[in-house]
Amino acid sequence: MNNKYLTKDLKILIVGLGLIGGSYAKSLMAKGYKVYAITKKQEDIDFAKNNQIIVDGTTKVLKSYVSQFDLVIFALYPKIFLNWIEKYHNYFKKGAIINDVSGVKSNIVYKISNMLPNDVEFVASHPMAGKEVYGVKNSDPNIFKDANFIITPTNKNTSNAIKLIEELGKTLEFANISILSCRQHDEMIAFLSQLTHCIAVSLMACKPSHHLKDYTGDSFRDLTRIANINENMWSELFLLNKNELLSQMDLFINKFNELKDYIANDDIENMKKMMRLSTKRRKYFNK
Amino acid sequence: MNNKYLTKDLKILIVGLGLIGGSYAKSLMAKGYKVYAITKKQEDIDFAKNNQIIVDGTTKVLKSYVSQFDLVIFALYPKIFLNWIEKYHNYFKKGAIINDVSGVKSNIVYKISNMLPNDVEFVASHPMAGKEVYGVKNSDPNIFKDANFIITPTNKNTSNAIKLIEELGKTLEFANISILSCRQHDEMIAFLSQLTHCIAVSLMACKPSHHLKDYTGDSFRDLTRIANINENMWSELFLLNKNELLSQMDLFINKFNELKDYIANDDIENMKKMMRLSTKRRKYFNK
Repeated sequence: MNNKYLTKDLKILIVGLGLIGGSYAKSLMAKGYKVYAITKKQEDIDFAKNNQIIVDGTTKVLKSYVSQFDLVIFALYPKIFLNWIEKYHNYFKKGAIINDVSGVKSNIVYKISNMLPNDVEFVASHPMAGKEVYGVKNSDPNIFKDANFIITPTNKNTSNAIKLIEELGKTLEFANISILSCRQHDEMIAFLSQLTHCIAVSLMACKPSHHLKDYTGDSFRDLTRIANINENMWSELFLLNKNELLSQMDLFINKFNELKDYIANDDIENMKKMMRLSTKRRKYFNK
Repeated sequence: MNNKYLTKDLKILIVGLGLIGGSYAKSLMAKGYKVYAITKKQEDIDFAKNNQIIVDGTTKVLKSYVSQFDLVIFALYPKIFLNWIEKYHNYFKKGAIINDVSGVKSNIVYKISNMLPNDVEFVASHPMAGKEVYGVKNSDPNIFKDANFIITPTNKNTSNAIKLIEELGKTLEFANISILSCRQHDEMIAFLSQLTHCIAVSLMACKPSHHLKDYTGDSFRDLTRIANINENMWSELFLLNKNELLSQMDLFINKFNELKDYIANDDIENMKKMMRLSTKRRKYFNK
């Protein structure tokens, strides 16, 4: 890949070497980039160094270290990211590009952007990929291959910096890269990701389940896969996108109640009509 | 497999050569059973004969034909099954065992049982398996291998006939065979299967979706797989199990609204508590 902006002479720092940070690092290193890391635990640095996931790393946040890097990617929980920038916003190199992986945007992007000096540019993005396992030890760049990558620029962003982050998405081999406003992103994510997690959690919370597995087909299994959930991350994401999420939950409840009324009233024509609509719309998602 | 009741000298008839009927036939024929079929279209008979899915079959319902069989398995939509038995209840051989694959029980089993002569015994069962494709041409006995098989006997059933149907489930290689009352079955299925289809259909009906695929992760895809739905079959199943389904829908709405209130009130402790519960319960379903 011949990148014009994300060139191999850039020094890249990843802050937070978990599943996503580790998978970014592993993918970039395999393609000849030089990736370094700051993370909490020395054992994660050691593991990552021994497995060619990073060149080197540290558990300490020092200005002399941070200020070497041209591109700094934050793979932290949103609130920890906010606290980090609050504390260390003047540690960056002049002209550095800052990027993140946060699953919510409006409540993060403007705050981060306002804390940074004028000569440091933050371009936000959201890699829509994950796994039900955590940590750098489970790093796996394949999780990006079928996945979507969303960039959410603000009017403070330069087109070159946006292009660099687009090249980052392409280099990580995301299947599809989109550009949305923070608000569009948050509405989309509230519906597609947060609402679905709320549904799965509620469904799984309905009844004790140890005996249910003997009677279940694939549908219940599919709908509750994501009920196995990281409660710290998701409760934070839900509250950081609260208004959008509540309005998408209302939209769903209204539709669900509409179907319930059709069933209660033996209104078979309207039931079938909704099913035909859902069948037609679901086809867009066939891979 | 050494069956005591489902022996190879039994003549087996399958009525309705669709995906399920065809997959039953194919699996049984591969194990040396002699399987015949009655179905609507001659082309399905021809295809099944040419592919060793059945020995032979017919599109006509004649007493001289039906009365040859020891075991008659109905793989029809519930209402078509009811109409069939209403018309032809006196066509069966004395001592024949009747079996079905219907996804609802209370509203079917007693009616069928009451229409049959005293010397014909109906043992109902529900193979919890399927595919998003239809017809004998898509027959595939592998769909049973990971799946559950539920037998719903009544107090009219003899233990030998129930054992025969248990052996049928084992011979078809279902992963797990259970015995439930019709009421327990219908409650279970309302929750595990019908409610999940209602959720998927409602979710997919919320908004136009052709652009959403560029922003979605796996969770939305998983939750809406079954929104691709056969509207004739499922609207019939929903209405035949209406009361149970409505009460499971209420249970889900209440739980979903509980989570919604926690989010609206920033009640992070209760949000996390529900997520921990859902995570713990989901583990029972890991394969």
